[in-house]
Amino acid sequence: MIKKTKKLFSKKPSKIKKKIGASPGTITYTGEKETSELFIEVYDYNEETVKIRELDRVEEGLEIKTTDTVTWINVNGLRHVNAIEKLGDHFELHPLLLEDIVNVGQRPKLDEYENCMFAVFKMLYYNTEDVLKVEQVSMVLGDNYVLTFQEADGDVFEHIRNRIKEDKGRIRKQGADYLLFCLMDAVVDNYFLIMETLGEKIEDLEEALIDNPNDILVHQIQRLKRESLNIRRSIFPLREVVGRLEKSDNHFITENTQTYYRDLYDHTIQVIETIETYRDMLWGLMDMYMSSVSNKMNNIMKVLTIIATIFIPLTFIVGVYGMNFENMPELHYKNGYYTVWGIMILIFIGMIFYFKRKKWL
Amino acid sequence: MIKKTKKLFSKKPSKIKKKIGASPGTITYTGEKETSELFIEVYDYNEETVKIRELDRVEEGLEIKTTDTVTWINVNGLRHVNAIEKLGDHFELHPLLLEDIVNVGQRPKLDEYENCMFAVFKMLYYNTEDVLKVEQVSMVLGDNYVLTFQEADGDVFEHIRNRIKEDKGRIRKQGADYLLFCLMDAVVDNYFLIMETLGEKIEDLEEALIDNPNDILVHQIQRLKRESLNIRRSIFPLREVVGRLEKSDNHFITENTQTYYRDLYDHTIQVIETIETYRDMLWGLMDMYMSSVSNKMNNIMKVLTIIATIFIPLTFIVGVYGMNFENMPELHYKNGYYTVWGIMILIFIGMIFYFKRKKWL
Amino acid sequence: MIKKTKKLFSKKPSKIKKKIGASPGTITYTGEKETSELFIEVYDYNEETVKIRELDRVEEGLEIKTTDTVTWINVNGLRHVNAIEKLGDHFELHPLLLEDIVNVGQRPKLDEYENCMFAVFKMLYYNTEDVLKVEQVSMVLGDNYVLTFQEADGDVFEHIRNRIKEDKGRIRKQGADYLLFCLMDAVVDNYFLIMETLGEKIEDLEEALIDNPNDILVHQIQRLKRESLNIRRSIFPLREVVGRLEKSDNHFITENTQTYYRDLYDHTIQVIETIETYRDMLWGLMDMYMSSVSNKMNNIMKVLTIIATIFIPLTFIVGVYGMNFENMPELHYKNGYYTVWGIMILIFIGMIFYFKRKKWL
Amino acid sequence: MIKKTKKLFSKKPSKIKKKIGASPGTITYTGEKETSELFIEVYDYNEETVKIRELDRVEEGLEIKTTDTVTWINVNGLRHVNAIEKLGDHFELHPLLLEDIVNVGQRPKLDEYENCMFAVFKMLYYNTEDVLKVEQVSMVLGDNYVLTFQEADGDVFEHIRNRIKEDKGRIRKQGADYLLFCLMDAVVDNYFLIMETLGEKIEDLEEALIDNPNDILVHQIQRLKRESLNIRRSIFPLREVVGRLEKSDNHFITENTQTYYRDLYDHTIQVIETIETYRDMLWGLMDMYMSSVSNKMNNIMKVLTIIATIFIPLTFIVGVYGMNFENMPELHYKNGYYTVWGIMILIFIGMIFYFKRKKWL
Amino acid sequence: MIKKTKKLFSKKPSKIKKKIGASPGTITYTGEKETSELFIEVYDYNEETVKIRELDRVEEGLEIKTTDTVTWINVNGLRHVNAIEKLGDHFELHPLLLEDIVNVGQRPKLDEYENCMFAVFKMLYYNTEDVLKVEQVSMVLGDNYVLTFQEADGDVFEHIRNRIKEDKGRIRKQGADYLLFCLMDAVVDNYFLIMETLGEKIEDLEEALIDNPNDILVHQIQRLKRESLNIRRSIFPLREVVGRLEKSDNHFITENTQTYYRDLYDHTIQVIETIETYRDMLWGLMDMYMSSVSNKMNNIMKVLTIIATIFIPLTFIVGVYGMNFENMPELHYKNGYYTVWGIMILIFIGMIFYFKRKKWL
Ligand SMILES: [Mg+2]
Ligand SMILES: [Mg+2]
Ligand SMILES: [Mg+2]
Ligand SMILES: [Mg+2]
Ligand SMILES: [Mg+2]
Ligand SMILES: [Mg+2]
Ligand SMILES: [Mg+2]
Ligand SMILES: [Mg+2]
Ligand SMILES: [Mg+2]
Ligand SMILES: [Mg+2]
Ligand SMILES: [Mg+2]
Ligand SMILES: [Mg+2]
Ligand SMILES: [Mg+2]
Ligand SMILES: [Mg+2]
Ligand SMILES: [Mg+2]
Ligand SMILES: [Mg+2]
Ligand SMILES: [Mg+2]
Ligand SMILES: [Mg+2]
Ligand SMILES: [Mg+2]
Ligand SMILES: [Mg+2]
Ligand SMILES: [Mg+2]
Ligand SMILES: [Mg+2]
Ligand SMILES: [Mg+2]
Ligand SMILES: [Mg+2]
Ligand SMILES: [Mg+2]
Ligand SMILES: [Mg+2]
Ligand SMILES: [Mg+2]
Ligand SMILES: [Mg+2]
Ligand SMILES: [Mg+2]
Ligand SMILES: [Mg+2]
Ligand SMILES: [Mg+2]
Repeated sequence: MIKKTKKLFSKKPSKIKKKIGASPGTITYTGEKETSELFIEVYDYNEETVKIRELDRVEEGLEIKTTDTVTWINVNGLRHVNAIEKLGDHFELHPLLLEDIVNVGQRPKLDEYENCMFAVFKMLYYNTEDVLKVEQVSMVLGDNYVLTFQEADGDVFEHIRNRIKEDKGRIRKQGADYLLFCLMDAVVDNYFLIMETLGEKIEDLEEALIDNPNDILVHQIQRLKRESLNIRRSIFPLREVVGRLEKSDNHFITENTQTYYRDLYDHTIQVIETIETYRDMLWGLMDMYMSSVSNKMNNIMKVLTIIATIFIPLTFIVGVYGMNFENMPELHYKNGYYTVWGIMILIFIGMIFYFKRKKWL
Repeated sequence: MIKKTKKLFSKKPSKIKKKIGASPGTITYTGEKETSELFIEVYDYNEETVKIRELDRVEEGLEIKTTDTVTWINVNGLRHVNAIEKLGDHFELHPLLLEDIVNVGQRPKLDEYENCMFAVFKMLYYNTEDVLKVEQVSMVLGDNYVLTFQEADGDVFEHIRNRIKEDKGRIRKQGADYLLFCLMDAVVDNYFLIMETLGEKIEDLEEALIDNPNDILVHQIQRLKRESLNIRRSIFPLREVVGRLEKSDNHFITENTQTYYRDLYDHTIQVIETIETYRDMLWGLMDMYMSSVSNKMNNIMKVLTIIATIFIPLTFIVGVYGMNFENMPELHYKNGYYTVWGIMILIFIGMIFYFKRKKWL
Repeated sequence: MIKKTKKLFSKKPSKIKKKIGASPGTITYTGEKETSELFIEVYDYNEETVKIRELDRVEEGLEIKTTDTVTWINVNGLRHVNAIEKLGDHFELHPLLLEDIVNVGQRPKLDEYENCMFAVFKMLYYNTEDVLKVEQVSMVLGDNYVLTFQEADGDVFEHIRNRIKEDKGRIRKQGADYLLFCLMDAVVDNYFLIMETLGEKIEDLEEALIDNPNDILVHQIQRLKRESLNIRRSIFPLREVVGRLEKSDNHFITENTQTYYRDLYDHTIQVIETIETYRDMLWGLMDMYMSSVSNKMNNIMKVLTIIATIFIPLTFIVGVYGMNFENMPELHYKNGYYTVWGIMILIFIGMIFYFKRKKWL
Repeated sequence: MIKKTKKLFSKKPSKIKKKIGASPGTITYTGEKETSELFIEVYDYNEETVKIRELDRVEEGLEIKTTDTVTWINVNGLRHVNAIEKLGDHFELHPLLLEDIVNVGQRPKLDEYENCMFAVFKMLYYNTEDVLKVEQVSMVLGDNYVLTFQEADGDVFEHIRNRIKEDKGRIRKQGADYLLFCLMDAVVDNYFLIMETLGEKIEDLEEALIDNPNDILVHQIQRLKRESLNIRRSIFPLREVVGRLEKSDNHFITENTQTYYRDLYDHTIQVIETIETYRDMLWGLMDMYMSSVSNKMNNIMKVLTIIATIFIPLTFIVGVYGMNFENMPELHYKNGYYTVWGIMILIFIGMIFYFKRKKWL
Repeated sequence: MIKKTKKLFSKKPSKIKKKIGASPGTITYTGEKETSELFIEVYDYNEETVKIRELDRVEEGLEIKTTDTVTWINVNGLRHVNAIEKLGDHFELHPLLLEDIVNVGQRPKLDEYENCMFAVFKMLYYNTEDVLKVEQVSMVLGDNYVLTFQEADGDVFEHIRNRIKEDKGRIRKQGADYLLFCLMDAVVDNYFLIMETLGEKIEDLEEALIDNPNDILVHQIQRLKRESLNIRRSIFPLREVVGRLEKSDNHFITENTQTYYRDLYDHTIQVIETIETYRDMLWGLMDMYMSSVSNKMNNIMKVLTIIATIFIPLTFIVGVYGMNFENMPELHYKNGYYTVWGIMILIFIGMIFYFKRKKWL
């Protein structure tokens, strides 16, 4: 009578399923960039000095951390979970935080831990096939250090590296909280580029739609709708994330830097409003398409109706005089043929007038 | 003059009606899984030791409960209301709580009682006919124990059983609140599988729609809409449930474990966002269908109009020379027949040009 | 120069207008159940004893009220405003409360007065013509008594009467606040029946729509939409009403009973979610109808286009050889007639292939 | 190099523009009722006595104000700004308050000043051409007095005048706050009449739509939509206004009267819900129209297709035997003609069956 | 093994990109009005005296600032970033504030700094080609001074200049906070003009749509939708901005002036409601267009169907008697021809009746 409880799901092995069974805090990379090598950059600076190192093993970088300079450790390549765990041990990061770093399906968010703040942002770009790609960037802000984690090489932080190296702006004079702001600002600034590209796509589509509305354009509208939906998902939660950073009262972020987070908040709202506007515009394009198709149908039907309405009665008339009755007096009239032509021309002209009055011509 | 008040509803006896008359706190199973046997599992563990028992009578399991180990009692088969009542008496559960356990139409929710916390979740799966099924899982968290109640055998907790048995992860080192988190996490993780299946269905539908839009696909879109609506109803209330668990300040959930509930909250939001995206995509499919049908209609009408517009006038012309008038000079011209052919070919070519210019060809 | 201010509205006398002029607190029945007789039930009970009386004059019932038993006075027939006023005087009810009892257009609500709580609920049922009817039930909860007021005979409280008489459940052991809960619970439980009926109607409509979409079904969809709108108006405000009861901190409702109100709240939310789902489904039916009509049109047009596109050119050809030109060499060919048939059959087959390739056949 | 800054807007002089230049607090009537004479009513009353005066100059009325009676001054004719300014000086009203009284584009609102409360309501009525008209009524509540300002003669306060004169209800026993409630209540009660009229219009439109859907009805639907939009704008802000009155904690409104404001709040919500329902119904009418037009189109196309599909092939057949080939054996068969008729009748019957099976007939 | 991180975006140089690299607080003009000259106005006044200067270099204006008069410095021409930086240094403005002044893509907002309040508003106008233009106006309120920054010459402040010069209204008697209110009020008042223009455009479009619905009007509807969307973006955030000004508790705005900000808030809400109404109306126009196109299609199809349904059967009949069978007795009947005419006329009349009954004629 005693049975074992059945497992509900056994059909197909999927990437998601592998993750599901794992204990909470298990560190498994869920992204697709399997091939990227581990590559670590370390920037250690204060107002007077800057040390820059590039490593491919995490152990080399850990001794660099000293308390009174700002340290930025940028880790590329999330599939190297061992290195990430070592780093996590060194900075005493919570297992759930490490899990989130490599679990790239995160929603943008801000988590406050006792010894650090943890933020997840999404870097957006169009790849060479013009497909929108999303790369998760995790950022950890602790006392005097910032850690960033990227799925693979390539990012939007080049300007920040230059400013640190060449001591431009106020970055070298400020703490780790200002560095975090600069990194987030770089990600958000980049959204404006994405918006520009998306805006141009919508404009192109609109022109094409006015020119020649067809079925393919509908699919393109749907694709852009979905793209804008994806972008919205990556950006919308930032409203709350950055808003909380601006108002946070812990010791990681100084009051002076919060003014900068307020500026970042403004930009975030601007991007969100732009994406909402684009979504409205895409709905408008769909409306334009539907009304344009209806209009074309009307025009097609007008042509058919005009032709049919003129010639069907005339064809009837000529049919009448094509009948073979013995006794059809009209056939023998001298001007019968010309009379019929006359009548038919009158009908023709009458129809034309009728259509003119109906504004079909 | 004195009359008895009439009863309003007497027409048809229904399952719902039977329940309606009952006194509040009456324990009646309202689900459909009538055939499932009672089957009880008991896990009793701490860091050093684990005892596992499988029972088919509830009395055997009650003595196992001792205060300093964590006890998980998993009850399968809600129609065995007597067993559930005995368990309820033993743990001093409120009658309304017991009523909710067997009343499987509950909305996901979290109720706080004096001596326990009570949560209702929905386990989702597709059955063998690919129909979405919902199974209610009730969870009770008290001091050092967790009770779970399922309608029937089969669940998503197999990984948790293994982790307890084989002492994997931190589950054996933690209290009952962490066990509750693990169970909820397993339910929510499973939603990602459901999302994956639903996402594939939508993609298949979209491909079919681009290939050959027809009436049956509309019914399938509507069915998926309804399915996503059902899933949404099962998942959406978790936002608040898990959010409250994360922020709850009673003694059942330790501060350490709340970090895990925050992680669960993230996942819940992710699932909710995914289902919202799917709903948007399903609306988009409907738009694609309508525009595709309009487009096909336009093409059909173009073919008809082209044929009719070319041949109706020509048929009129040949009708003219099929008339039997005695006096029709053209009929006697030597090249009359060829001239008419010439005119008709000119008309034909003219029409083709006209349609080309209108971009109908 | 002095003029009297004009009255703005004098055209048509309406029921509403009669009420409008009245002083606030004027007690005028605004419903349509003019014919119902006054009928009063009094239940007076505690754990040991129960007294039940049925009256047709209110004075007889007032002496029954003693302080340490629970008294339920159920008044049927709101047009008997004098009786209601007498009852109001006896229990010192506010004139505005009495006005609301007989003014049956109330929105469901909860008003707290100094000496009582006042709730308005809507009892829903389908009458014999399957038209949704709404009956207002007002409930007053004071110290140790509950008053209920109904427009006419017939209600959903029969189970409660039985439980009091036969001492089933815990009703006889509890106070007036528990009785009020039972009454509200009965009203809300009954909504599940209404939901069941509405759900069946929607399913029937959907089947009919798949079978044979036509204009009449659209009107039925609109009628169901309006019905669901009406139900929603009667139910939606309960969310707030019951929620406030659950959290109220006055002395009328004991903490023990509030657990029951939380249960009621769950049910209220369930009903509201169901009605929202039904509304979504009705929108879906409308979409199904429109796409089905478009599809049928496409099929009609295909038939027309196929027939016309095949036979119009053929008719032109036979028209050519129906011309009466003297000099038409083909007419004299031995196999001219058969050649024309051959050409026409080739055209026919070609057209069939063309339509097959276009998937119109 | 020094230039004057350019003015941006100089093209067309408009009423709005004249107002724009004005200093804040400038009192300019912006309505259209230029012709209405100044007419002032003064009611001064307490429980024992009532004095009523009707004036056409404001100075006469000011001495009537004594502290221990309630005074109601009703001013008709907002273009008489001087009189309003005099009144404002006497009661020490803020210039912005006076500006709002005569600036009739106000949104319904409640402003609290130090020495008074200021409310703006909208009186709605249909004029003789059945066009919805909006008249702004401003109300000022101070210690023991109420001022009301109307654009022109004619209002919904006649019942209140009677109740004061004839000492009906509790109005003479209460203070100025109760009078303000009565005035607001009269305005809101009147909305029920507007709702009744609008409801009837919608019902008429629906019947007409079922009877004979046509283009004109669409314009009427749009007009009613716009009308309901206008009504909504006039009523919706009252939700907050009356809600704040109910909960206000200043000394102008006694606790006793707040119960009445709660009643008013109920009515306001009822009206708002009704207007929302009407808007839903108007959307439904639009859907009904569109589906009905589609349906009619389907029926038209069916007729055309049936006729064409039956007769076009038959016409082809008779065309075949109208050809003039020398060698056409069938023409010489004795029963050729009858055979052709037989074939054509068979085709005809076949087609009829085909259409019956397709449910087109 | 060590690689440099790649830069993600290098394809096209864009205006946005140039800005992206910049350090936060970098002052770069992002607008398009490159050609406008620097032009500075200084108004310095109190109740007794007013000094007005117009400059083209910022240094000249700085000494004018004295503490006990109100100073308004209006700067036109944002591309002159050096002048703006000098002004910023003089008044100790935050670099982010200066960046926002010249970064004209700001959303309307209010930022509170320690030594000033900073507001961004949008001035709207239609240019000579009737295209909506947006000009950013930044306003800084400090102790006794207001700074305004405009992209180019031309604004809506002319009335304020006059009121200061000619000591009209209360402006000269009030502080800088009242001046700020006047400037904001001027911007918001101007929105009413924009609303008027937009309203007229919508009305014109509606008339055109009733007259002759066509494809071009759809594009115009879409353009107006987008225009209204743009206006909404410029105005909607003011709701919060002005609301915060009304309730702000810092020392820059006196309690007396806050009453004026409440008035401004009213106007802001009015404008927002108007724009929402317009958006509803534009959706309504789209509905009108679609239903009108459907209706026209129906009429076109009716004409075609009537003609075809009448003449196609008649053409068949005359075709029958155009056949050349030897044995066709009817052809030899004396009245055969007239009989056929009779039958055809009967069919014609029958069809007319049929269409009359279907209300197609
Ligand atoms: Mg996790
Ligand atoms: Mg997990
Ligand atoms: Mg996580
Ligand atoms: Mg990267
Ligand atoms: Mg930025
Ligand atoms: Mg900024
Ligand atoms: Mg916004
Ligand atoms: Mg749409
Ligand atoms: Mg229950
Ligand atoms: Mg019950
Ligand atoms: Mg329950
Ligand atoms: Mg199970
Ligand atoms: Mg999880
Ligand atoms: Mg979201
Ligand atoms: Mg009332
Ligand atoms: Mg009243
Ligand atoms: Mg009843
Ligand atoms: Mg219940
Ligand atoms: Mg819809
Ligand atoms: Mg004003
Ligand atoms: Mg003004
Ligand atoms: Mg008036
Ligand atoms: Mg009222
Ligand atoms: Mg009331
Ligand atoms: Mg709606
Ligand atoms: Mg910036
Ligand atoms: Mg920047
Ligand atoms: Mg300017
Ligand atoms: Mg203004
Ligand atoms: Mg105002
Ligand atoms: Mg719409």
